[in-house]
Amino acid sequence: MSRIDGRTPDQLRPVTIERGWSKHAEGSVLVSFGGTRVLCTASFTEGVPRWRKGGGEGWVTAEYAMLPRATNTRGDRESVRGKIGGRTHEISRLIGRSLRAVIDFKALGENTVVLDCDVLQADGGTRTAAITGAYVALADAITWGQGKKLIKAGRQPLTGTVSAVSVGIVGGVPLLDLCYEEDVRAETDMNVVCTGDGRFVEVQGTAEGEPFAREELNGLLDLAVAGCGELAEIQRAALAGEL
Amino acid sequence: MSRIDGRTPDQLRPVTIERGWSKHAEGSVLVSFGGTRVLCTASFTEGVPRWRKGGGEGWVTAEYAMLPRATNTRGDRESVRGKIGGRTHEISRLIGRSLRAVIDFKALGENTVVLDCDVLQADGGTRTAAITGAYVALADAITWGQGKKLIKAGRQPLTGTVSAVSVGIVGGVPLLDLCYEEDVRAETDMNVVCTGDGRFVEVQGTAEGEPFAREELNGLLDLAVAGCGELAEIQRAALAGEL
Amino acid sequence: MSRIDGRTPDQLRPVTIERGWSKHAEGSVLVSFGGTRVLCTASFTEGVPRWRKGGGEGWVTAEYAMLPRATNTRGDRESVRGKIGGRTHEISRLIGRSLRAVIDFKALGENTVVLDCDVLQADGGTRTAAITGAYVALADAITWGQGKKLIKAGRQPLTGTVSAVSVGIVGGVPLLDLCYEEDVRAETDMNVVCTGDGRFVEVQGTAEGEPFAREELNGLLDLAVAGCGELAEIQRAALAGEL
Amino acid sequence: MSRIDGRTPDQLRPVTIERGWSKHAEGSVLVSFGGTRVLCTASFTEGVPRWRKGGGEGWVTAEYAMLPRATNTRGDRESVRGKIGGRTHEISRLIGRSLRAVIDFKALGENTVVLDCDVLQADGGTRTAAITGAYVALADAITWGQGKKLIKAGRQPLTGTVSAVSVGIVGGVPLLDLCYEEDVRAETDMNVVCTGDGRFVEVQGTAEGEPFAREELNGLLDLAVAGCGELAEIQRAALAGEL
Amino acid sequence: MSRIDGRTPDQLRPVTIERGWSKHAEGSVLVSFGGTRVLCTASFTEGVPRWRKGGGEGWVTAEYAMLPRATNTRGDRESVRGKIGGRTHEISRLIGRSLRAVIDFKALGENTVVLDCDVLQADGGTRTAAITGAYVALADAITWGQGKKLIKAGRQPLTGTVSAVSVGIVGGVPLLDLCYEEDVRAETDMNVVCTGDGRFVEVQGTAEGEPFAREELNGLLDLAVAGCGELAEIQRAALAGEL
Amino acid sequence: MSRIDGRTPDQLRPVTIERGWSKHAEGSVLVSFGGTRVLCTASFTEGVPRWRKGGGEGWVTAEYAMLPRATNTRGDRESVRGKIGGRTHEISRLIGRSLRAVIDFKALGENTVVLDCDVLQADGGTRTAAITGAYVALADAITWGQGKKLIKAGRQPLTGTVSAVSVGIVGGVPLLDLCYEEDVRAETDMNVVCTGDGRFVEVQGTAEGEPFAREELNGLLDLAVAGCGELAEIQRAALAGEL
Repeated sequence: MSRIDGRTPDQLRPVTIERGWSKHAEGSVLVSFGGTRVLCTASFTEGVPRWRKGGGEGWVTAEYAMLPRATNTRGDRESVRGKIGGRTHEISRLIGRSLRAVIDFKALGENTVVLDCDVLQADGGTRTAAITGAYVALADAITWGQGKKLIKAGRQPLTGTVSAVSVGIVGGVPLLDLCYEEDVRAETDMNVVCTGDGRFVEVQGTAEGEPFAREELNGLLDLAVAGCGELAEIQRAALAGEL
Repeated sequence: MSRIDGRTPDQLRPVTIERGWSKHAEGSVLVSFGGTRVLCTASFTEGVPRWRKGGGEGWVTAEYAMLPRATNTRGDRESVRGKIGGRTHEISRLIGRSLRAVIDFKALGENTVVLDCDVLQADGGTRTAAITGAYVALADAITWGQGKKLIKAGRQPLTGTVSAVSVGIVGGVPLLDLCYEEDVRAETDMNVVCTGDGRFVEVQGTAEGEPFAREELNGLLDLAVAGCGELAEIQRAALAGEL
Repeated sequence: MSRIDGRTPDQLRPVTIERGWSKHAEGSVLVSFGGTRVLCTASFTEGVPRWRKGGGEGWVTAEYAMLPRATNTRGDRESVRGKIGGRTHEISRLIGRSLRAVIDFKALGENTVVLDCDVLQADGGTRTAAITGAYVALADAITWGQGKKLIKAGRQPLTGTVSAVSVGIVGGVPLLDLCYEEDVRAETDMNVVCTGDGRFVEVQGTAEGEPFAREELNGLLDLAVAGCGELAEIQRAALAGEL
Repeated sequence: MSRIDGRTPDQLRPVTIERGWSKHAEGSVLVSFGGTRVLCTASFTEGVPRWRKGGGEGWVTAEYAMLPRATNTRGDRESVRGKIGGRTHEISRLIGRSLRAVIDFKALGENTVVLDCDVLQADGGTRTAAITGAYVALADAITWGQGKKLIKAGRQPLTGTVSAVSVGIVGGVPLLDLCYEEDVRAETDMNVVCTGDGRFVEVQGTAEGEPFAREELNGLLDLAVAGCGELAEIQRAALAGEL
Repeated sequence: MSRIDGRTPDQLRPVTIERGWSKHAEGSVLVSFGGTRVLCTASFTEGVPRWRKGGGEGWVTAEYAMLPRATNTRGDRESVRGKIGGRTHEISRLIGRSLRAVIDFKALGENTVVLDCDVLQADGGTRTAAITGAYVALADAITWGQGKKLIKAGRQPLTGTVSAVSVGIVGGVPLLDLCYEEDVRAETDMNVVCTGDGRFVEVQGTAEGEPFAREELNGLLDLAVAGCGELAEIQRAALAGEL
Repeated sequence: MSRIDGRTPDQLRPVTIERGWSKHAEGSVLVSFGGTRVLCTASFTEGVPRWRKGGGEGWVTAEYAMLPRATNTRGDRESVRGKIGGRTHEISRLIGRSLRAVIDFKALGENTVVLDCDVLQADGGTRTAAITGAYVALADAITWGQGKKLIKAGRQPLTGTVSAVSVGIVGGVPLLDLCYEEDVRAETDMNVVCTGDGRFVEVQGTAEGEPFAREELNGLLDLAVAGCGELAEIQRAALAGEL
């Protein structure tokens, strides 16, 4: 059985990572997972939020947003509505937690990196593309901070790499990296965030229709771990300048 | 090794479910998981939100909130701050999704049930207590709707039962139903929502410190499934008037 | 003529005051006036708001709110609407003023007590129940502060006691402590806050229908003063552990 | 003993009522009580808010606000802060209730009058000046509505007149119509709204320092009733074109 | 061809400037351009906003607002809606920029003047009346600050005068100082802010219908420069006490 | 004298217009003026806002925003702050007005086009780039609407073309199309919006330092008209597929 875009069930969409997309940010990446395109910028600043001052530890946080016409029908701007929706909040928090999982805050010192992940075009998997791209932008911002001697010589704030992918059951078949049309038809939808060594940072599975059984969960986790491994390799290549 | 409150790793805290706590609501439950106390009210109204009209299907949604002094130090009121925090949004959405997983909207007909889950006292696991209690309040509201003939005779909107529990790894040991002190020390924290027949509605695991391995995830899922089974029995007993 | 619930015109509803309802707050009370149930917590913290610093005087303030389904039909959550309604503001201010009337701020020292009065179930007289219960929670919080030596030895911040009751004219008859059904039918509605020695802290009378005459006002004040006297005795008994 | 501005205790400040101040509004009045100046406009529109439709009854409501520099030190604009303060809400509600007390909604028909009371300069007693002026603007708007035949011939929506005054105890002496400097020094502060025939619409007394005794309350009510009588005469004269 | 109110194309409406309108503000002016009436108050305070501290320079800013019934049909209050509209923001910014164009911030020293321009009655040209009146209020506030020695002796913060007028093309004819009825019919609408010596501070021209040609623009600028000259003379006379 | 980036005073930066940048929007353009990059999407929907219904006329509106890290230092997200700043409002309104100037609403029929102009990278002239790019996106969306027969056959809603450019005086020299570094040093700053036939839609000139004289204004207008002519040719070429 072939997928809507001709992929096999365990195949990622074409993934591209363009570094240095913005001339202002300390790290910036335009990441695409098929039709999903997210601009991830990492802003490195000295100092930390007030509640974190004085402990010698840094901070990493993220904000996720979608342009109004990133989707098929135009959505209201959250700035115009005057409040951020629950979904936006939830994804921003997820991205922040995922990146903090691979940060040694002592090594970062009292510096802050803010990751802005703005979805320019959405076609499913925006949060997982955002995490995968933001990691690369974060790595570049940290390199910048080391170059500026804002991070102490010999300290490496990154303790590993992190990437994310969606998986889901569509028509009874577990699929890797759902595009939008698959996503809306999925009976079960799961986002998995892994470190480069294959351990889990986040596992979020939701039954959209029928509850799912333990073996289905296991099948999805298998797919996701393999997908995150491939993404880790793409991240490595991007950072090595091989893309 | 014994836990802070003397429980074994796979033991729930004392769970109580008081039905009929509020004289106004169509269903209402004061649920406690140890020191966590949540008032869950189910408001049954005829009609559905505008975007859902005309299809003959009902709607179930939830709002979660915490009283300012439910916790050890007083938090700001979200109504005073003028906006709802990300965590509140996220939990409200989780509760709503969890309950919708066991609803047949056609059978419910064009009626709406709103679940309000207000945490009166917090001691860890407020979202899982809320889901577990809200299910019972929802069941009572549906019975009320059947009594009022707002639900067609012979239709059963509930397709199953749903309960939830937290699990986590503390000091390397997987534990069931974390209290607050365990929760803050947990390396990994997971909330699991199951139907009464042991399938999954939601699985949300987060590495608070170190990423977690597949076998740790498996151990936590085993604990959670067993805990949800016990909670399902308590729900059944409460609805049968045996508590 | 007997009232809807069989009381005589000058009779209070059954009043209960449960102290120590919350394990976190420095003072906490679940107060009920018949079907009206309000959870009052007193949060004692060192320090005062910025505008009050440096003068050696403390501060007492209050926030009142109602759970969405405290009433017969569900109301919108003020946190969701993003703003606090006029009625909520007005009652919060009234509770704060009423309690400050019996506080010696010098004796309290630079400490703050915040009273949260959350209506769990409403059946008329929520603001007067809140004031009456909040006084007891405040007294407990002050005792806690004395125990922790946050209040100087030998200083008593409480200069008296305070309680409140509603009165109104229904069908031409002045009645004490209106329940909801009486309240909606009242031609005149008055809330009176008294100190334990029978003096007035607040008098708020409103003609809901016909304007009221001076003699009617006098009759209502007589009822209210007597009712507040009874409430003061119940407060005393609660604090003495006699309830 | 003479007052700060030379008045006797039972003397109003000079009161002026200029009708027709705005060329757009259906009724408009610039009212002054000494240094307090309030622009009251009455906007008459056909139709009523949605919740009131279909019953054949009209609606009257009010909004109160203060220009930022109406007071001695500039206050923040509520529109800039993005929310209305508790005091503003409370006074808006008071003005609305006071005017509705003299309206026959059936006679008004399905029309709405909105009273905007904007304080241009504040020197104590802004809410009582607003009520007193708004009554005159309301009367003019109703006359306008009658002229336009929006109110049925022969129907009189006004059932009486309404005016308001502040009273207070300063240095132990009950005073009528407090100016700002008296107001800040008052031990007890009361706002009284009366109909032209001397009955009460609202009585709001607050102990700012010591609680007040019944005889003090009685003395203040005597002063207020007399003051409202004088104001009613000034309103009558203004409407008769005698001012 | 004569205009709706009988003026010639290059004629201003009657302009009046009443100084000292408010007893609290350091400078205050009620300015009228025909039926447009704006209350301009200047609040002088020591100190500057945080972002400007320490440089020895002052600050001047403005807020513009319209009373709800300043116009022919009542508008919503921005404080009630909870946000300021785009038009209000834009005009507030324009007024602030215009006045800052004639301020020597070094000479002002670390003092702030806030101009509040509240439109009491609107009949076209509210922003230009506001700028013209605010300049006079600002001048009075600066004189006040000099009298209080808050401005160093011998320093003159005002580097010139500023006034503003609207011009537009109506029915093909360029007109000075449009009233509301002309404004709504204008094909091109322009607001021009000039210094007393005839140079430009702001030029804002908008084609409401057809785009406009260079010669039309030139004609409008000629009219505006002459009108601003007349206004500068009226401002001078007002400040000299000749009005 | 050469400019910071080597241009002559009357030279535009390199301008690129990429059509079809987004797969969802009916028209979409990534426009760049040197380092300024704006994503302009045009969303075509049937129907008009409520206030415009029934007259057979369409509507065109615009929203402008900047990504947080489009600039050299990260700005707060307006959605997080909960309100839109004055500058954002002002520019959104300007873009909308500019595009409406070349629309025949009757020919458009009851359809709405919303232009979203999101600045991905800012280097001066973001509003003029946005207008210039939005025109092309609008033209594509109209062609789409014609293709879908949502616009009546034979009707052309576009009455002309529109483009915009900034001009300013820097160091006494009038310059075309300021980059950020020139913009901050400009004594006078002007944005000019022209139709393709060289007439004016908007002229907005502001003295940032010294007021400017009539001849300076004339010089700037000359530069701007020529620049807009060049941009009109680039727009034409882009729409013709020649770029």
